[in-house]
Amino acid sequence: MSDRPQTPLLDQVASPADLKRFSDSQLVQLAHELRSETISAVSETGGHLGAGLGVVELTVALHHVFDAPRDKIIWDVSHQCYPHKILTGRRDRIRTLRQKDGLSGFTKRSESPYDPFGAAHSSTSISAALGFAVARDLGGNCPSGLGDAIAVIGDGAMSAGMAFEAMNNAGHLKKRLIVILNDNEMSIAPPVGALSSYLSRLYAEAPFQDFKAAAKGAISLLPPPFQEGARRAKDMLKGLAVGGTLFEELGFSYVGPIDGHDLHQLLPVLRTVKARATGPILIHVLTKKGKGYGPAERARDGGHATAKFDVLTGEQRKSPSNAPSYTGVFAKALLAHAAQDDKICAVTAAMPDGTGLNLFAERYPSRLFDVGIAEQHAVTFSAGLAAGGLKPFCALYSTFLQRGYDQVVHDVAIQRLPVRFAIDRAGLVGADGATHAGAFDTAFLANLPGFVVMAAADEAELVHMVATAAAHDEGPIAFRYPRGEGMGVTMPERGEPLEIGKGRIIQTGARVAILSFGTRLSEVLKASESLRARGITPTVADARFAKPLDEALILDLVQNHEAMITVEEGAIGGFASHVSHFLAEAQVFDRGFKFRSMVLPDTFIDQASAEDMYAVARLNAADIEARVLDVLGIAQLAGKRA
Amino acid sequence: MSDRPQTPLLDQVASPADLKRFSDSQLVQLAHELRSETISAVSETGGHLGAGLGVVELTVALHHVFDAPRDKIIWDVSHQCYPHKILTGRRDRIRTLRQKDGLSGFTKRSESPYDPFGAAHSSTSISAALGFAVARDLGGNCPSGLGDAIAVIGDGAMSAGMAFEAMNNAGHLKKRLIVILNDNEMSIAPPVGALSSYLSRLYAEAPFQDFKAAAKGAISLLPPPFQEGARRAKDMLKGLAVGGTLFEELGFSYVGPIDGHDLHQLLPVLRTVKARATGPILIHVLTKKGKGYGPAERARDGGHATAKFDVLTGEQRKSPSNAPSYTGVFAKALLAHAAQDDKICAVTAAMPDGTGLNLFAERYPSRLFDVGIAEQHAVTFSAGLAAGGLKPFCALYSTFLQRGYDQVVHDVAIQRLPVRFAIDRAGLVGADGATHAGAFDTAFLANLPGFVVMAAADEAELVHMVATAAAHDEGPIAFRYPRGEGMGVTMPERGEPLEIGKGRIIQTGARVAILSFGTRLSEVLKASESLRARGITPTVADARFAKPLDEALILDLVQNHEAMITVEEGAIGGFASHVSHFLAEAQVFDRGFKFRSMVLPDTFIDQASAEDMYAVARLNAADIEARVLDVLGIAQLAGKRA
Repeated sequence: MSDRPQTPLLDQVASPADLKRFSDSQLVQLAHELRSETISAVSETGGHLGAGLGVVELTVALHHVFDAPRDKIIWDVSHQCYPHKILTGRRDRIRTLRQKDGLSGFTKRSESPYDPFGAAHSSTSISAALGFAVARDLGGNCPSGLGDAIAVIGDGAMSAGMAFEAMNNAGHLKKRLIVILNDNEMSIAPPVGALSSYLSRLYAEAPFQDFKAAAKGAISLLPPPFQEGARRAKDMLKGLAVGGTLFEELGFSYVGPIDGHDLHQLLPVLRTVKARATGPILIHVLTKKGKGYGPAERARDGGHATAKFDVLTGEQRKSPSNAPSYTGVFAKALLAHAAQDDKICAVTAAMPDGTGLNLFAERYPSRLFDVGIAEQHAVTFSAGLAAGGLKPFCALYSTFLQRGYDQVVHDVAIQRLPVRFAIDRAGLVGADGATHAGAFDTAFLANLPGFVVMAAADEAELVHMVATAAAHDEGPIAFRYPRGEGMGVTMPERGEPLEIGKGRIIQTGARVAILSFGTRLSEVLKASESLRARGITPTVADARFAKPLDEALILDLVQNHEAMITVEEGAIGGFASHVSHFLAEAQVFDRGFKFRSMVLPDTFIDQASAEDMYAVARLNAADIEARVLDVLGIAQLAGKRA
Repeated sequence: MSDRPQTPLLDQVASPADLKRFSDSQLVQLAHELRSETISAVSETGGHLGAGLGVVELTVALHHVFDAPRDKIIWDVSHQCYPHKILTGRRDRIRTLRQKDGLSGFTKRSESPYDPFGAAHSSTSISAALGFAVARDLGGNCPSGLGDAIAVIGDGAMSAGMAFEAMNNAGHLKKRLIVILNDNEMSIAPPVGALSSYLSRLYAEAPFQDFKAAAKGAISLLPPPFQEGARRAKDMLKGLAVGGTLFEELGFSYVGPIDGHDLHQLLPVLRTVKARATGPILIHVLTKKGKGYGPAERARDGGHATAKFDVLTGEQRKSPSNAPSYTGVFAKALLAHAAQDDKICAVTAAMPDGTGLNLFAERYPSRLFDVGIAEQHAVTFSAGLAAGGLKPFCALYSTFLQRGYDQVVHDVAIQRLPVRFAIDRAGLVGADGATHAGAFDTAFLANLPGFVVMAAADEAELVHMVATAAAHDEGPIAFRYPRGEGMGVTMPERGEPLEIGKGRIIQTGARVAILSFGTRLSEVLKASESLRARGITPTVADARFAKPLDEALILDLVQNHEAMITVEEGAIGGFASHVSHFLAEAQVFDRGFKFRSMVLPDTFIDQASAEDMYAVARLNAADIEARVLDVLGIAQLAGKRA
């Protein structure tokens, strides 16, 4: 505690209502304290830092001017919500961020009434806020009441189609709705896309110094109705609301750009909007990611996400890495193929770093396409590239691929176009929690006709699967791999294409066969070691493919064992379901055969360490061992079952 | 043949190359003949009429100026492609449209090299065209070569987020790319959304007569680079390129609006664009849906889709309807609840007619939200409505729900918000083919924790499921129902909420239990009748719920029968997979139990009558009967197996 910052004003804040009595200059001081507290907390927990630091003043201003939880402040993505959590009664738990049984790293309805709509994926806030606004006007109700609906959305998130859809609908419905465009020229990666250039032009035309003083006076003068007022004010005061026509064309009033770190601008603008707005209004706020903390400000990504760190130096305390990350292995393997085949190109949706494709961008900039937060487009654009004879690798996180599912079906699968899907973060992800847990991809891809679906058992296998995908021109192919480090296995000199639809036997045993799909193989092998001590040696196989299934391998395992257990890091409907369907059709069950499948449980698992999440999911070695003993009817020691 | 129009010029067209030698005035005549031929063909086949008639001149102009198949003309949605098919070597088969083994009602890569990218869902064309443009510039290849990439997209389709994502990316990449905005103020329903209002303002400011003559001269004067030129031309000639700033802000040059039925405007503009464009350019073309055919022009929906009709009168030859459509039953049932509960509201994504919600719009306009072609927003907006205490019914076609899948997971399921999903067109749909076949919804919803997933066995059941959804406030709930007419069963006075997770026994028999999920129940009962003649009376049950499963019912069926067969109109991973997983866990297979599941096959089924598609899918009564005999080991007569 002795290292913690002095926060005399913040110490007086138990809920946002306490901000009401602070003067504007006290709020400036409060923002300073809130920033220090945020830095201090994240230094102890790790997590998203830069985004929160960028909205400290905005958070203070919103909670001072508006009345949460009645007014609904909806943070887009919500990795910038730590200051908000500190001000909304969760300061005492802020150092449990992203930990098991602690605070979520995102907003979460079940956590607090001050989180009216949870998030973690991008660009949902305007849709949600519009829902609240409409519900308010239609006599809806919720325990905390229904007041203003305020979406706070970044410039990167604004480039997603979903945000445009919501703006288009909001501009049409004309309900009172407040959208705050938090423009830091930075989503996770530097911004891409025409909208970003447009926003840059907007504020290039309106440097802060020109309207800093004007903002306060001018906006407070706006007459109702506000929409007309905004236009008139714009005409009156050059530099106050320059441009913004794109948003006005979509039916929004536009105010900005405003210095988002200057409470003397934010407060009067928000007060005026609160007093006068009648329809949808967009407030364009300029902020700096990582603001006020040197190491974050200097970082290329604005201190986006960090491990625990030393506050004075900014040095991160990462545990030493034993093995390369799957992401890195994928990226390196893809580079090797790209070097030999100039038809290979890569597509990312605003995640060049997260997918490892930053390496590709450096080496082959003309063949790397960062399309922005735009998964729908990413998939169909990849389909177009494939139709044009290129070999696109579309690299997305498992849960973000859900954004492009119809495009996968309609543009890729039905047309059998050879798009290669590199599915990162497949499986449980730890601290990011349920919203980022890639649970459904095997299920939603493996039932698409013509698709090839693979999962890597380890990082060496991933190298081979990249090679397999590169060589597969007959139709769509996907390979999934988890977040985090590999197993530390020996790496192959080069990737070799696998035979499509062929699994492999890892060890030959008796009585029970464990058929693994993906990286739980290491736990299967641990379980196998433990079972050996009991005199049971399971046969262990790595299916490699959920589609097409290695039917010969499966039948062989059936014929030579009493029981089979499938293990995968995915929900029901995926690998196990395909195996089970095949076994039923092959009449295997007719004569009695013990089949079990270990899949992710039917629950969304809250943030925790990946290990803890696997324990909840019952997918650790001990669980697999228990499952084997159970299926063989062998009594287990009490408490042994994990 | 005698009734067919005289088409002397069209008769000389075997491929688009034949258009090159026609003069501009001959092209006008050709367009006239092409329109007559389109009307004549659709009068014989039924299908999408209005959209094709709206682009007759555009189709002629594009094929005259550009060089397909080297130049890629990509029709968005592509229900407007009939004139294109007539000009591209498929005239001889145009009267097989939408029939089994005939031409698809949409563009289709496997059908013709002139269809470079198939479609049926909306708003994919710009993404695909950009893929072709990039492939061209990166040395990609395809058999027909890679020239210009041209997306033709409607104003409704342009409002989808995906189109915005593609524009944003295209404006950033600055590749030569041609987007033709076919603005008919009409997607399927009258347009909604702020973008639509914006487009109306654009052409309100530029009436045709002002720039009709100017267009030809001015645009041909544009100097390269075209982007700069367009701006200068705009300054020079008032009325030629008014507004358009929204598109220019996204990095596109803007030309328009142009009268899309006037070849003397279209041709010079396209010629100039072809000669001079360097970057992305948007050509804003105004057309009229149903143009040139009185009955279509006068229809509220512009003659969107039609049955076979009499060309002279426009009268449609629909077969008399025996039973109400599922869509109509849903809509009526929802209205009954809405009358009693003012919290009930409804959301559609540009399909008020298709989903039956036009009735709702008439009765309760303030509670009906047509959000435009914007499924991502539709789902999260519904989640916001639910969070605000309303009871939203989000009515989407099964395959369009795929567009909002991540939102279903992230915004609805994880937050357990009580959004009611009315899933129309679940299952095979007939003439619209594979792109519209709702095969995957049960699989991609039933593995989401906390979801309730139902399928109606008949239209009376649908009424009860609407009531069940209306009453279910605990979390998300979905009910699926197919395209077309119900079974003609007796309708209940009012819907009664079903007990969540409880199925029902339809008839009690012996030896084999058939557990049906959805409307194949009628085929199951037919099969049962036929089996009775062989002395076999199966037990027939209607599961009603894929989630939660009626485990007690299932175990009861297992205990009292030798075998169980599940029947559903969905892909693997859905209902059968959940049943099978449960049976495995319940150790039912251990002691030998005959289990089979009848699901949609692992193939995309081309357009045909629904009956023919069911035959391909082997989901007709004869198939079910054969399956029962097979599982019981009873020899079948040769040829009996369907």
